[in-house]
Amino acid sequence: MQEDLRVIIVGGVACGPKTACRLKRLVPSAQITIFEKGRDISYGACGMPYYIAGMTPDIKALCDTPVGVTRDANFFKNVKGVEVICGKEVTAINRQEKTVTVKDVDSGSETTVPYDKLVLATGGHPVRPPIKGIEAKGVQHFHSLNDSRTLEAELQEGKIKKVALVGAGLIGIEMAEALIARDIEVTMIEMFDYIMPALLDEEIGRLAGKHMKAKGVNMGMGSPVSEFVTDSAGNLVAVKTKDNEYAADLALVAIGVQANNQLAVQSGLAIAPNRGILVNEYGQTSDADIYAGGDCVATNYIYPIMGRPLFTPQGSTANKEGRIIANHIAGMSEPFPGVLGTVICKAFDFNIGRTGLSERWARDLNLEVETVLWTGPDKPHYYTGADPLAIKLVVNKKDRKLLGCQITGPGDAAKRLDVAVTAISLGATLDQVAYLDLAYAPPYSPPIDPLNTAAHVLQNKLDGTARGISPLVAKEKIEKEDVTLLDVRTPWEFEEVGLPYDVVHIPLGAVRAKGSELPRDKEILAFCKLSLRGYEAQRILQAQGIDNVCFIEGGVVGWPFELRTK
Amino acid sequence: MQEDLRVIIVGGVACGPKTACRLKRLVPSAQITIFEKGRDISYGACGMPYYIAGMTPDIKALCDTPVGVTRDANFFKNVKGVEVICGKEVTAINRQEKTVTVKDVDSGSETTVPYDKLVLATGGHPVRPPIKGIEAKGVQHFHSLNDSRTLEAELQEGKIKKVALVGAGLIGIEMAEALIARDIEVTMIEMFDYIMPALLDEEIGRLAGKHMKAKGVNMGMGSPVSEFVTDSAGNLVAVKTKDNEYAADLALVAIGVQANNQLAVQSGLAIAPNRGILVNEYGQTSDADIYAGGDCVATNYIYPIMGRPLFTPQGSTANKEGRIIANHIAGMSEPFPGVLGTVICKAFDFNIGRTGLSERWARDLNLEVETVLWTGPDKPHYYTGADPLAIKLVVNKKDRKLLGCQITGPGDAAKRLDVAVTAISLGATLDQVAYLDLAYAPPYSPPIDPLNTAAHVLQNKLDGTARGISPLVAKEKIEKEDVTLLDVRTPWEFEEVGLPYDVVHIPLGAVRAKGSELPRDKEILAFCKLSLRGYEAQRILQAQGIDNVCFIEGGVVGWPFELRTK
Repeated sequence: MQEDLRVIIVGGVACGPKTACRLKRLVPSAQITIFEKGRDISYGACGMPYYIAGMTPDIKALCDTPVGVTRDANFFKNVKGVEVICGKEVTAINRQEKTVTVKDVDSGSETTVPYDKLVLATGGHPVRPPIKGIEAKGVQHFHSLNDSRTLEAELQEGKIKKVALVGAGLIGIEMAEALIARDIEVTMIEMFDYIMPALLDEEIGRLAGKHMKAKGVNMGMGSPVSEFVTDSAGNLVAVKTKDNEYAADLALVAIGVQANNQLAVQSGLAIAPNRGILVNEYGQTSDADIYAGGDCVATNYIYPIMGRPLFTPQGSTANKEGRIIANHIAGMSEPFPGVLGTVICKAFDFNIGRTGLSERWARDLNLEVETVLWTGPDKPHYYTGADPLAIKLVVNKKDRKLLGCQITGPGDAAKRLDVAVTAISLGATLDQVAYLDLAYAPPYSPPIDPLNTAAHVLQNKLDGTARGISPLVAKEKIEKEDVTLLDVRTPWEFEEVGLPYDVVHIPLGAVRAKGSELPRDKEILAFCKLSLRGYEAQRILQAQGIDNVCFIEGGVVGWPFELRTK
Repeated sequence: MQEDLRVIIVGGVACGPKTACRLKRLVPSAQITIFEKGRDISYGACGMPYYIAGMTPDIKALCDTPVGVTRDANFFKNVKGVEVICGKEVTAINRQEKTVTVKDVDSGSETTVPYDKLVLATGGHPVRPPIKGIEAKGVQHFHSLNDSRTLEAELQEGKIKKVALVGAGLIGIEMAEALIARDIEVTMIEMFDYIMPALLDEEIGRLAGKHMKAKGVNMGMGSPVSEFVTDSAGNLVAVKTKDNEYAADLALVAIGVQANNQLAVQSGLAIAPNRGILVNEYGQTSDADIYAGGDCVATNYIYPIMGRPLFTPQGSTANKEGRIIANHIAGMSEPFPGVLGTVICKAFDFNIGRTGLSERWARDLNLEVETVLWTGPDKPHYYTGADPLAIKLVVNKKDRKLLGCQITGPGDAAKRLDVAVTAISLGATLDQVAYLDLAYAPPYSPPIDPLNTAAHVLQNKLDGTARGISPLVAKEKIEKEDVTLLDVRTPWEFEEVGLPYDVVHIPLGAVRAKGSELPRDKEILAFCKLSLRGYEAQRILQAQGIDNVCFIEGGVVGWPFELRTK
């Protein structure tokens, strides 16, 4: 290791500072400088919606350490031994000379700074679609601390009453909750029929979207924005879609993020089709002395199952990549294993998470998969605070390996999701997941954990015992074919809520006795509140010689469309 | 599959009913009979402490389905197609004839019943140590629904004011919380120095025990019960240990559970040294037509790392074994992969969990291991409800595989524990755990999940960068050697709380400047609130040529002994 290694890092938010601090610990003699174009460094961007929601009264909290020390340039100098210089934009890289051109943002003056190793941590920027009116006052993004300051100031002025959130992705969802908490009228506009369409399958996206609607979000699904309508002064007054027009004082456009790749492009570094800078498993770009990490890279060091390079801007990944880059600069060769596209967010009382392949992604990759939608409580019913979960699993039929998992509901989704992440990362089969010795006590889970149970049902499907169909398939059958819908719940459950169709109601306890009365010329779709009794009904009827029978996975709790209520 | 297969199941609580219901779904023609000696069937025994705590006003809730249908004999007959007969004890097995002798508990009359397959799900019983006075009125166990009914009635009479919990295991811990919630004075008596001694390493057991003490439990650690002292009427008045005498109206003895193996022993079936019935991975005993599962078996189908058969009575395992047994009787050969000794419980505001090998177990198996104790918040500090966690990891130095994990604290321990369970089950190395793409958003975790971070620190230890020592080792050094304790926290943290020793206080930001003032002839033990700044101080001082320096893992938050407070 060369003494006084000179390391230049471009970008001071997540991957940059992480790289710097780790590297300084590994190589105390290294001279590390971070150039940051803006004024804010090392802040928790993911906390911004919670700042808007009022959880942290001072935005400074997002820039502090857990014990309340501000992570400013002084902090980096004294505590971390790293120089951070704000208001400095790196405008060019001279790869032959190994120097960068640094422009002072205020004065415009330029200097040339040499490096031994260069790290690009330039982040991303919000996608700005070429929609009519997007330049209007009141059409904004929500990406930086400054965006947060602007929005907070506007909210405090009290003039914003109606906000249109354009894009039902993570930012839109988190901001919906934050703005409703501040008594703002919120409309979510999404061109697909359900939320998080890039990440979730339809039934999960619809289930979570139903909850957002129940919490007061006006859900404008299924039609893209066609125009931001302004008044004569150029202020936003409405957001138009093909089908509708939504009054709005403010539109937050959050339909995606793109890598800030300009420096890399100008310098001739390799770029992925998804615009991210291409790096190897050590974070090196196509120039071995130039590294890149965080929201500006394409994660092409992927788990085999993902099948393609991902662009997954996440604070978690940025930090891990920073560690990997620092390790490699310090002479340690630890490869980054990649990501599974794991995402989680909170939407009011629901958790929404996903990892690995969705059913749609899997089919795009021409994999033959089987899936299950399971619903059930996250704890025993007698334990206070037991809440339902909906879990969708996707497995490869060929080798029974778990490929993906999506979970939503008010129950503890994060735990089951992280177990699925771990299982998929390590190549687990469905059968291994089915018997994991997960931690059991009533405050945490039912005796058999929901993830175990969901795996059991999917095993039953693969083994031919359980004939579950997804609610999407069920809806199509109900509306297009002549089927018998068999509700096997108790009378008091039946009275409360149900599917909005003609059904035959036979509580499960009576199915053994009355099953023979069911018409045998039509397919029977059995269902209950969740899935178990529907499945039991299927087995009981089969034993009575009725073979044209299946059950609706997820039951009433997992029904992603409107329900009949009292 | 033989038509009208006759299956007899002995025991109606967990494994028995699970086996019966699953088998009936797989083989609808099977004639399944459960004989249960007692009157209660299919109940959630793990819910009993929460019933005592007042969470479920009616004990019936523990016997109900989630929609409120009681799982009684009628339910099993009509809904499940299974016959359950209570008050019937199976007293003998005739393996040649394939019959069992069934005695009516009330009348004593006996009948002989034939079986094709027999399932022993006879459960366990609480260990009853031969301590003087154990027969006294007021010395009880807490194992069955009837034990719960008895205790609840006594509590409602209002005569019980002081309870001694003998044994700091799961039941003792859960009952401590339940009884304190009912304003009972509680003393926990344990022969070891810390709680859950069979399951936890000392530092984790002490940390969790400190919390119980803070919540008002009188912790009588380190001395076994020598006598249950009674008054002249034979009523319990106190519990004596070598060192102390604790007044008590009631003692609940919960020092362990043993398998009910009498039937198996009488029938000449193989039994493990731990008294559990020996079964193979399909649940078969040494007689291929006799299966056993639940609390009466030795889990000898173990993960390789565990090194020995375990006796781990758990509702989760009992249910999984029931499924495995049913599968095998139905002709499916699905092996049970075993358990990792995963345990979790809630103790007031703390969660306490463990899986795999503790450091002590690993050393007993002569494995060369490295460990880490990490502490930190479970969410970003700016997110409401961020709480600390202490995580201990144990890895095999030879192949860097994760062997065990223990977690405690008010933070979300269950999630990280289940990830560790999954990782260990699938043979993950520490390095794989370090980069798992776990779900990140502020309501769920910091950008780098605590489990990732703990793994990073342990990587740093194995790689020689981080010189962490456990607080147990630190305490010994502090008390027996002449060391310099270096507290690198901020002044306001220092003022609040600290280690109860003479320390040198230099906030981390000043260590670069003032490090040279530290005495170089003594070992320096750096520490902070958690671990990171202590580690940074170690690296900074090393860079200044001070090499005799390490940091105390877990810092002040992880210090398992008394602290200095204001």
